[in-house]
Amino acid sequence: MDLSKLRINGARLRTSLEEMAKIGATPNGGVQRLTLSDEDKRARDLFVKWLKEIDLAVTIDEMGNIFGRRPGTEDNLPPVMSGSHVDSQPKGGRFDGILGVMGALEVMRTLHENKVKTRHPMMIVDWTNEEGSRFAPAMVSSGVWAGVLERDYAYGRTDINGKKFGEELVRIGYKGPAPAAKWPVHAYYEYHIEQGPMLEGQKKTIGAPKGILCLHWYDIYLTGEANQVGPTPMEGRHDALCAAAEMILATNRLPDRMGGNIVATVGEIQNKPNSRNIIPDGVHFTVDIRSWDDDHAIKAWEHLKIDLQEIAARRGTPIRIDETWRCPHAPFAERLVQRVLDTAGELGYSSLHMVSGAGHDASYMNQVCPTAMIFVPSIGGRSHVEVENTAWSDCEAGANVLLHCLLKTADEH
Amino acid sequence: MDLSKLRINGARLRTSLEEMAKIGATPNGGVQRLTLSDEDKRARDLFVKWLKEIDLAVTIDEMGNIFGRRPGTEDNLPPVMSGSHVDSQPKGGRFDGILGVMGALEVMRTLHENKVKTRHPMMIVDWTNEEGSRFAPAMVSSGVWAGVLERDYAYGRTDINGKKFGEELVRIGYKGPAPAAKWPVHAYYEYHIEQGPMLEGQKKTIGAPKGILCLHWYDIYLTGEANQVGPTPMEGRHDALCAAAEMILATNRLPDRMGGNIVATVGEIQNKPNSRNIIPDGVHFTVDIRSWDDDHAIKAWEHLKIDLQEIAARRGTPIRIDETWRCPHAPFAERLVQRVLDTAGELGYSSLHMVSGAGHDASYMNQVCPTAMIFVPSIGGRSHVEVENTAWSDCEAGANVLLHCLLKTADEH
Repeated sequence: MDLSKLRINGARLRTSLEEMAKIGATPNGGVQRLTLSDEDKRARDLFVKWLKEIDLAVTIDEMGNIFGRRPGTEDNLPPVMSGSHVDSQPKGGRFDGILGVMGALEVMRTLHENKVKTRHPMMIVDWTNEEGSRFAPAMVSSGVWAGVLERDYAYGRTDINGKKFGEELVRIGYKGPAPAAKWPVHAYYEYHIEQGPMLEGQKKTIGAPKGILCLHWYDIYLTGEANQVGPTPMEGRHDALCAAAEMILATNRLPDRMGGNIVATVGEIQNKPNSRNIIPDGVHFTVDIRSWDDDHAIKAWEHLKIDLQEIAARRGTPIRIDETWRCPHAPFAERLVQRVLDTAGELGYSSLHMVSGAGHDASYMNQVCPTAMIFVPSIGGRSHVEVENTAWSDCEAGANVLLHCLLKTADEH
Repeated sequence: MDLSKLRINGARLRTSLEEMAKIGATPNGGVQRLTLSDEDKRARDLFVKWLKEIDLAVTIDEMGNIFGRRPGTEDNLPPVMSGSHVDSQPKGGRFDGILGVMGALEVMRTLHENKVKTRHPMMIVDWTNEEGSRFAPAMVSSGVWAGVLERDYAYGRTDINGKKFGEELVRIGYKGPAPAAKWPVHAYYEYHIEQGPMLEGQKKTIGAPKGILCLHWYDIYLTGEANQVGPTPMEGRHDALCAAAEMILATNRLPDRMGGNIVATVGEIQNKPNSRNIIPDGVHFTVDIRSWDDDHAIKAWEHLKIDLQEIAARRGTPIRIDETWRCPHAPFAERLVQRVLDTAGELGYSSLHMVSGAGHDASYMNQVCPTAMIFVPSIGGRSHVEVENTAWSDCEAGANVLLHCLLKTADEH
């Protein structure tokens, strides 16, 4: 057959996405499938069943990463890989992560039913805990697999209820026997929604990010002095929430101060004792800083850190700062990025060369092998929310680009 | 006997307080006895048992208020009442509220064992849900009893888990048959820890507040736009937590701006979805404003409200403001306040004429009958915290002042 005419089955891809969206469905049309939850387990079970239906060899490693392998005609060559994650944010959407897994599955199904042979073997992957919202940090299992993070560090991470990653992995039955350790990979493509407004704003169908912004996470802990609010004069108070409020605004002003090329956000806050007539004495909040320029991001943090310490000292609220996680910016393989753009053109889709603001497992895979991503538009630029949406025609377009990028790459010498 | 020589039993008072402190004891030496919780029920059971041991006639009303009555020689006269509350803040202390109940109990025990007869009957009371931290607002059951709040409004209040006040009252078995409706009262004294730094700072043993500051509670709700933080430019964000941070600081600056005579506090905040890589789209926080001058407090709120609306409009985070509760300042009966000061002097204790910054059930009782309070020092001015403390000798002193104030008042014509 003329492989250049091959196309994935858009209707089948939609059905797969709709089936997955039922697992952890929220009342407002989103999905809550937190990593290592019962919902995550059900989605994994369905995914594994689908892998076996098309004769893929399934491997589960000690981080719960799920791999499905399709042999190549030269089966000793390193595989071409593609995948993403089935976990979601709390009240997340129906596309983030799962589109890249179902997209790669749809490619595998298309190759299977057309009995297509490829030189390199091909592998599909679901990475455990990409989101990092239940257990920080994000992308932890691709990080362990890539040799960047320690397995036992990941096992020891706790959720807000004190449950450990390692124990929850065993509980849902997905601590597999294979070591979570990288093997030689020929190339990795990750298909994902954009999660930003660029493609929609410029009316393009396919995005080819030149790489991923660096991602730095910090955790700030403030100690104040609790007291009944009525009889305690304003003077002499040590109000941890007021200190945090100043720090949140300093974080928000940081990108302007640095002249742009950076975003900075406080997404999470806990306040103690959180009673309306007690002065807060314990606040924890997070800082997320991202830039294409790692040095710029670190310089920004150094400025902010001085601000935070100054605010804490002035308000008499001792501060502890944890530098939780730093993932450097990931410039993808130019050759593969160009292949995404070229393939989009060959298939008749408009495309955009851009950057990825969101972190992805592709970031760690980029440290293992040549890597690229394929983006499709997020309606209204919205993601990590229940109304997250992408047109079905765009889902189909992205999967077709993935199909042909994988085919070309898997036949390379 | 010469009643002027009569004294309460300080050791017994201490034992009562220590027994009560076991119920809901926290690891750091405090107490967590949230209103209508299992701990509240156990404290009530013990209290009722103790009332019956000294032959007081126990009545429980439909708000769960517990009354113990001691007959007078002219038993048709209106009673002299005293009491406070057995509920506590989350991680609260061993004295707030319970001292006023155990202090009045100790007075009753002293009268009982000495077979003292009084002209007016005497009553002791435990008011349900003084704290208001599980179910807002505070002092709700003295408010209903005094005819200021509606019973069914109180029943419908929900805690953070959606449980209703009325249902929890039934669950712990303290929805009594008596109507929660005021009867004629000759006078009400409430014995309490100061919860502020004044007595300790001025080295005085007994405080006689001229009244209680007004207390205004507001609830603010902000709506932002959630999005993945990485790919979403700073420009065009609608970050509800940044808007809240500005508002918290505006609240904190309010007393300065008003030239003092007022305190303003944000004690409680909830942030949604509270994930470190999602822009916050829903924040709720509380504002607590107190002053001796009600008009001053309302004027301050009107200024603040304009600020909040301006911040919300500028940041594109729609705001909803609930004016949850306003309790006017309560000037106590001057004659009774003077009696507290005089009695302290007669017993050899130093004293201070002051105000109460904290709200108390005495605030609503002041609308029913002549009312006064007796304060003893809070070590370090701390309260509503586990380290809340008062010297045992001060606990005894306050109870002796209460004893003689009650004796004098109960023998009035």
